Amino acid sequence: MKYCSRCGCVVSLRVPSDDNRERHICDDCGIVHYKNPLVVVGCVAERDGKILLCKRAIEPRYGYWTVPAGFMELGETAAGGAARETLEEALATVELGHLFAMVDVVDAGQVHLFYTGKLISDFGAGEESLESALFSEDEIPWDDIAFHSGRFALKKYFEDHSKGCGVHVHELRRSRS
Amino acid sequence: MKYCSRCGCVVSLRVPSDDNRERHICDDCGIVHYKNPLVVVGCVAERDGKILLCKRAIEPRYGYWTVPAGFMELGETAAGGAARETLEEALATVELGHLFAMVDVVDAGQVHLFYTGKLISDFGAGEESLESALFSEDEIPWDDIAFHSGRFALKKYFEDHSKGCGVHVHELRRSRS
Repeated sequence: MKYCSRCGCVVSLRVPSDDNRERHICDDCGIVHYKNPLVVVGCVAERDGKILLCKRAIEPRYGYWTVPAGFMELGETAAGGAARETLEEALATVELGHLFAMVDVVDAGQVHLFYTGKLISDFGAGEESLESALFSEDEIPWDDIAFHSGRFALKKYFEDHSKGCGVHVHELRRSRS
Repeated sequence: MKYCSRCGCVVSLRVPSDDNRERHICDDCGIVHYKNPLVVVGCVAERDGKILLCKRAIEPRYGYWTVPAGFMELGETAAGGAARETLEEALATVELGHLFAMVDVVDAGQVHLFYTGKLISDFGAGEESLESALFSEDEIPWDDIAFHSGRFALKKYFEDHSKGCGVHVHELRRSRS
């Protein structure tokens, strides 16, 4: 960030008087521009014991499989976002269940929230997917799952066997050397 | 948002070619500026059956009582943020427990995550608080709690009696007329 999105003047990185960390502050109008973590919402959708995954048609991780997930948008609930992403990426309608896993992806500045879901429609490939398919636990392409958080969610989902007992919380950071 | 924070040129609100909702896009460099929900993290900290609350020294809701909570920051986990807010607002150290409540505050574009905690230090009034105090369930000033989400979390906390069985998810929207 170089310029103030309100007045167009130059911003500089400094600690506001009532704060304890550096923020981008406009040198002219003085507004503080905060940057905070983003929420990613996803759904592990099941039908007859099989889970719906999408093969990514976009970077990062083009060609890898993923749980339908994406950035939560303004104006929706987290659960609503998880259902929307499933519709957009897999053209699939789900009956949303419960929040069952949360992953802190600290270095990316993201919190990933995963919901259970019951697949209640056909499915296909949305614009960001090459294809979608159903996998039993034995069939999941574990080595070709796009993201750590999705792999964590899938593992915990099968461990739970849909019992819905609590939220699995996980923290991802780059390993420190 | 009127100006591009990268190049300082004017932005306009339109739908990007690979998207389905309006975003602020720079008329010059073409970058898309996304706006997404923010995460608020809080902690219901208990000692000897009593809960730690802070009386707000800032607007909104100056003078009302609140569960220690605030915006999650980059570089921390949600749980870490809940502990940090408790330290900043109540000068209190907690042993963080588990995520037990989530509230979608849709109209504010926020997701509120509440953790249980065990108070393991003294406490006081941080810069954003007039005072802090411990309250038993009977003593909670229910009519003077600052925010709906905090009231929801406190109610669910007492209903749970710290059993830790699942996450209570709640959605807040302005009532539609």
